[in-house]
Amino acid sequence: MTDDATNHHPAHLELGVCDYPEQVSPQNWAEDARQQKALGLRYVRIAEFAWSRLEPQPGEYAWAWLDTAVELYAAAGLEIVFCTPTAAPPAWLIEQHPEILPIGRDGHTKTFGSRRHYDFSSPVFRQHSRRITRALAERYGQHPAVVGWQTDNEFGWGDTAHSFTPAARQGFQTWLQQRYGSLDALNTAWGNVFWSMEYSGWAQIPLPNQAVAEVNPSHALDFLRYSSDQVAEFQEEQVAILRECSPGRFVTHNYMGFFSAYDHYRVSRCLDFASWDSYPTGTLEALREWKLADPALALTYARTGHPDVTAFNHDLYRGMGTGKPGSGGETVPGFWVMEQQCGQVNWAPSNPLPPQGAVQLWTQQAWAHGADAVAYFRWRAATSGQEVLHSGLLRQNSTPDRGYPEVQALKVEDLPLGRVPARVAVLHDYESLWLYNMQPHADGMNYWAQVFAYYRALRSMGQDVDLVHPDSDLSGYALIVAPALTLMTPDRAAHLAAAAQHAHMVFGPRTGFRNESGGTPRTDSRAHSPRCWACRC
Amino acid sequence: MTDDATNHHPAHLELGVCDYPEQVSPQNWAEDARQQKALGLRYVRIAEFAWSRLEPQPGEYAWAWLDTAVELYAAAGLEIVFCTPTAAPPAWLIEQHPEILPIGRDGHTKTFGSRRHYDFSSPVFRQHSRRITRALAERYGQHPAVVGWQTDNEFGWGDTAHSFTPAARQGFQTWLQQRYGSLDALNTAWGNVFWSMEYSGWAQIPLPNQAVAEVNPSHALDFLRYSSDQVAEFQEEQVAILRECSPGRFVTHNYMGFFSAYDHYRVSRCLDFASWDSYPTGTLEALREWKLADPALALTYARTGHPDVTAFNHDLYRGMGTGKPGSGGETVPGFWVMEQQCGQVNWAPSNPLPPQGAVQLWTQQAWAHGADAVAYFRWRAATSGQEVLHSGLLRQNSTPDRGYPEVQALKVEDLPLGRVPARVAVLHDYESLWLYNMQPHADGMNYWAQVFAYYRALRSMGQDVDLVHPDSDLSGYALIVAPALTLMTPDRAAHLAAAAQHAHMVFGPRTGFRNESGGTPRTDSRAHSPRCWACRC
Amino acid sequence: MTDDATNHHPAHLELGVCDYPEQVSPQNWAEDARQQKALGLRYVRIAEFAWSRLEPQPGEYAWAWLDTAVELYAAAGLEIVFCTPTAAPPAWLIEQHPEILPIGRDGHTKTFGSRRHYDFSSPVFRQHSRRITRALAERYGQHPAVVGWQTDNEFGWGDTAHSFTPAARQGFQTWLQQRYGSLDALNTAWGNVFWSMEYSGWAQIPLPNQAVAEVNPSHALDFLRYSSDQVAEFQEEQVAILRECSPGRFVTHNYMGFFSAYDHYRVSRCLDFASWDSYPTGTLEALREWKLADPALALTYARTGHPDVTAFNHDLYRGMGTGKPGSGGETVPGFWVMEQQCGQVNWAPSNPLPPQGAVQLWTQQAWAHGADAVAYFRWRAATSGQEVLHSGLLRQNSTPDRGYPEVQALKVEDLPLGRVPARVAVLHDYESLWLYNMQPHADGMNYWAQVFAYYRALRSMGQDVDLVHPDSDLSGYALIVAPALTLMTPDRAAHLAAAAQHAHMVFGPRTGFRNESGGTPRTDSRAHSPRCWACRC
Repeated sequence: MTDDATNHHPAHLELGVCDYPEQVSPQNWAEDARQQKALGLRYVRIAEFAWSRLEPQPGEYAWAWLDTAVELYAAAGLEIVFCTPTAAPPAWLIEQHPEILPIGRDGHTKTFGSRRHYDFSSPVFRQHSRRITRALAERYGQHPAVVGWQTDNEFGWGDTAHSFTPAARQGFQTWLQQRYGSLDALNTAWGNVFWSMEYSGWAQIPLPNQAVAEVNPSHALDFLRYSSDQVAEFQEEQVAILRECSPGRFVTHNYMGFFSAYDHYRVSRCLDFASWDSYPTGTLEALREWKLADPALALTYARTGHPDVTAFNHDLYRGMGTGKPGSGGETVPGFWVMEQQCGQVNWAPSNPLPPQGAVQLWTQQAWAHGADAVAYFRWRAATSGQEVLHSGLLRQNSTPDRGYPEVQALKVEDLPLGRVPARVAVLHDYESLWLYNMQPHADGMNYWAQVFAYYRALRSMGQDVDLVHPDSDLSGYALIVAPALTLMTPDRAAHLAAAAQHAHMVFGPRTGFRNESGGTPRTDSRAHSPRCWACRC
Repeated sequence: MTDDATNHHPAHLELGVCDYPEQVSPQNWAEDARQQKALGLRYVRIAEFAWSRLEPQPGEYAWAWLDTAVELYAAAGLEIVFCTPTAAPPAWLIEQHPEILPIGRDGHTKTFGSRRHYDFSSPVFRQHSRRITRALAERYGQHPAVVGWQTDNEFGWGDTAHSFTPAARQGFQTWLQQRYGSLDALNTAWGNVFWSMEYSGWAQIPLPNQAVAEVNPSHALDFLRYSSDQVAEFQEEQVAILRECSPGRFVTHNYMGFFSAYDHYRVSRCLDFASWDSYPTGTLEALREWKLADPALALTYARTGHPDVTAFNHDLYRGMGTGKPGSGGETVPGFWVMEQQCGQVNWAPSNPLPPQGAVQLWTQQAWAHGADAVAYFRWRAATSGQEVLHSGLLRQNSTPDRGYPEVQALKVEDLPLGRVPARVAVLHDYESLWLYNMQPHADGMNYWAQVFAYYRALRSMGQDVDLVHPDSDLSGYALIVAPALTLMTPDRAAHLAAAAQHAHMVFGPRTGFRNESGGTPRTDSRAHSPRCWACRC
Repeated sequence: MTDDATNHHPAHLELGVCDYPEQVSPQNWAEDARQQKALGLRYVRIAEFAWSRLEPQPGEYAWAWLDTAVELYAAAGLEIVFCTPTAAPPAWLIEQHPEILPIGRDGHTKTFGSRRHYDFSSPVFRQHSRRITRALAERYGQHPAVVGWQTDNEFGWGDTAHSFTPAARQGFQTWLQQRYGSLDALNTAWGNVFWSMEYSGWAQIPLPNQAVAEVNPSHALDFLRYSSDQVAEFQEEQVAILRECSPGRFVTHNYMGFFSAYDHYRVSRCLDFASWDSYPTGTLEALREWKLADPALALTYARTGHPDVTAFNHDLYRGMGTGKPGSGGETVPGFWVMEQQCGQVNWAPSNPLPPQGAVQLWTQQAWAHGADAVAYFRWRAATSGQEVLHSGLLRQNSTPDRGYPEVQALKVEDLPLGRVPARVAVLHDYESLWLYNMQPHADGMNYWAQVFAYYRALRSMGQDVDLVHPDSDLSGYALIVAPALTLMTPDRAAHLAAAAQHAHMVFGPRTGFRNESGGTPRTDSRAHSPRCWACRC
């Protein structure tokens, strides 16, 4: 991030809202902006999913309406977070290039009609992604009211991080060729002698979605890495354009809680900080399904979400940060809650109304966990489409919904000092997650549940916890816990051994059971004595 | 219905049976007919699924066997209800025109080998449907023993009301063009600005079965309307031929309990009255799945079905009737139970034996709810095919099964006077059902459960209930209950307001939350004050 | 089996192990073989899944490594059971002939990447199966250390016994033509008049996987017979080559517990004896799903498996034997446990560690039920691929895992005399199983549960039980129990009637309800008085 961008690290929590002016009559815009500012909001996030209005016909941009909206927000004193609109490619683009459509695990081509109907591996969509990003960034990138960017929206939503198109297959084969150089190296790394899975040509390597039964975990692991790289590269292409055309603005992405279809550390590398979309009542199924806590608590917390679950995700996405200078000069990772639930949602199996005070509580909790800003989703409830049962700060009929007065009553300047540095680190990496969940070995075993069990125990002892990557800087922690660090490399083992010089270490089951390729450490020669990879004991 | 047809409205309950002479040796036919008449049956329903015997080779009709069977029934004094055999297109037709086959939601083409393997949108199947209907109607339509017709069989069984073929896609696009005139109108009605779903060409509009996630409910709603229209038009084509070739006979269709894949009011318009197939023990899964009642009752009622569930469907299908003159000159809707369970069925997860007396009880209940006739399914248990575990009045070995003596002992003339006019109306429409069930918002929420809860409460107070369409004549009711009337139009609101002048009104949750397009009433301008669409309070 | 082969019938239980030398460094081989022999093992099973190492490029065999391994086993005094490697066709073969790949029930082509990715109906794969079998048999068939063969591995694993390829459809139609001669005969046998399912051309007959709803059970039954014949013929082609090139060696196949996708009696005809792969802790889901016993017992027996479940499968596969001369000259069916669990497995929902003593217990139980040999799976735990969480006698790091000392402590010579002849026969056939499970008629009804209920009751009375085919020799039994013998033919009825002269007979529900075609006995003419097909009472 450039120096200018760091200006956005706030002295106190800042508030914002997600708005979709294109979805309401323009006669509302000026009053909406005024009302937003009066409510104490600083930021408005816009243009997400607006592609069909930005470019109604191929190559014909329609800026007038957005120019007007931007000026009205600016005039009201709001700061704008712009979104690249790529999460919703328009119908004409799909008609021109149906090969953009992703193919699901089941082998069926997804259609237009929802969102995220694109394959990250599609070269033609990559080109259009760059084109629309550049057009938008050139038009608004240096507008004084524009302070930052969100790339796309919720990468991977709707099971779209993994696509099984011919382009993905070709891309995966090329990626493997670059990674391994030779088929011998790949066959050895994957241990393909098992079940005669050895390849004698790159073109023989299938995508891992239609095998007779589970594929080699090494095969699946590399496909997940490949897919993560596609998401990352897709975003990097947009970010490069935004850096060029919109200097001094931050760039972030709004992730989803617990989402694990790609490596969020890998994807976050090019960002200034990570954001996530916090919907506490929507996480109860995760609690129930993964048994994160006593399932009976799902009812207790039905209307607020389980507090540790929300906190866990705050700590998780804070940990994606590459680190920014704090007020005292030290590095303080920050994050945003880019979408904050402010009433009932619509997408969980059950969507109860949050109780009085929940919106304030969630906002304060975000601040306590280090959020720089919280933006409510959304200004007005939608009057059409898939989310009409989702609340906003305003109802469909323009009257305030229940979150509104709670936001109004918030005094962000009076909130106690935010997060204090944690002395405990819990180690998390997506590659271990994938290996764990691919082969849980026991019914109900789940990586998140395993990590969360330690997290909760630490929280119940009053400890602040950092969730960090095992290869990150571990100095400064008194206790380092690795609940499910099953993938171990010699470098990682050395790094942990060094950390063990100053910190207590706790390791969970299957620590170091897998090597970088997803196999087990190969110690089949009696010449090598076995030893623990984790602590070299 | 013509005047002749009204002759079939009976002074007392009439009985009948479904028979498949083509499935047994002709040496049984005369004795079977004699035995049916002796049992007190007036009607025999035949020729359902008999296409391969009526037209063994393309264009070569084989009438001889059916001529014989018809004469034997007539000679025995039975009256015949003929079926059009279109629910089971023969193998040679599928071989000639594989494009007739439906494509399921999962994108796979269904094959021959069961029944209902046709796409309602298929022009070529429509033509063959008309052809075989005309051939049959010309041959038997004016036979003195023939008193009525059943079109096809159980439209939509096997999830076939919605097909996802190229023909359906083309048909849907054309239907939309006719409904909306312009893409602007469609985009506005569906609110396609949400998620950039706007269309700039009719050919861009996909069927709603393979999107990344749920489609716009407005999109889905119109597809369900389109599909309903296909079922309706398919039937209307047959009915027009039957009216022409078989004057003075009634035409009906046998619906399935709780089935909701098309708008039964729309499809019923061309019928004289509706029929349904009543299998009380088969409905227990609905009770359990939708929690229509305490699931523990599923065991209590395992062998009889829950009485309110059966009653609900009687009242539902009676309400499809367009109204016929009653004995006192007033309009009395009638209906038939075209297939009445008379022993164990075979298609539910569990198929217990009905207890002694159940067959009589079910028959009497049908009469009490306004049925004009009850036809048992079936005369003889099948000796081959998918239903060998389904009972008939006779066993496979020609001996009476348990229903037989119960029918024998029935004195239909002695049954107390049938249904009395209801003072309570419960409003039901399929469009509200679709919107409710598409987005239930709470786990376990279900339209039928919502409507049934009110129905049961009213029944427990001893009230007779009419289940009627909200736009139907509501005069004469003292109480009108709308448990789940979520789709509201200005006209409907006015109609209900008028009804409220003479009746007490009760509205359930989400009443009037949706407009005709499935969005919410658009009141985003502060210039319009919001108000309740239902009661204009 | 030839006389030579009978030499392998042992005076006491023999032990063996499954080994995959190609998966470990050759520097281990000599010591591994020495250690195996020292552990008391007689047999080593090898070359399963080794095709990619036996033939790395089309037609280029690589024998050197296997020559070395064979000599090292032989030098250590081990006897070798060779496998044909056809369960894992190499990638180059699939690239050359993608039509080898099976198509699943869902219509999707399976890909390379796991195992069993071949269609039994594929002519080109049949040819390659014969070719690699001959190459292997010619190379090693007469090696003095080679004592027997296992064909392929676990036929049908991964739902591959039924394939839905164009080749399978063509093969099925030809098979039907040979079975029925005319379409009239087929239409009559299947009772296709029901639902107009009559065929007027062989090419019209579809595979039974994509119909609108369930297909005619007669259709499904014949497809299961066809599929069984494909498995049988596939194996027979290999066995003929093995008999020719490797005289005097036994041939067996390793079946899976409770597996029922093909007729194991039909497939076993060409074998000397049957083997099966015994994983007691992996069978608990069957216990729970089929309610073979109180589901609460699933926890009690989580670490050992339910003893009657294991015993049932021993008795089941012993009953596949065609009978060999026993020590006293009488016919004694034998069987092998070709893969015996010796630690945790990896493929069940939960895979707990077996308790101390379990490996000995399982071994002894196999002997008590008539096993001639027990081979542990596997020597070393895998270091790559799908089974790294599956134990072996050695861990990945060459140290003994928990099964090792138990095997070491076994004194096979001291085990009490094995199985005594049973006086009770329980009748089992796969055709009845298919018909039962196709149309269970009651939730939770399941063929295996029905048979097991009787088996368990008999076991609890201290009875040894033979599980035998109803058409097999039934002399010598005092009690014959047919828990679910729903398919009855006149010949079978006569055979049972003869058996009833000397034995008590017990029949379960639905006995004799189905004829050979899967319909019911056709007694619709009143001229025939009905009677019980089973006992002709």
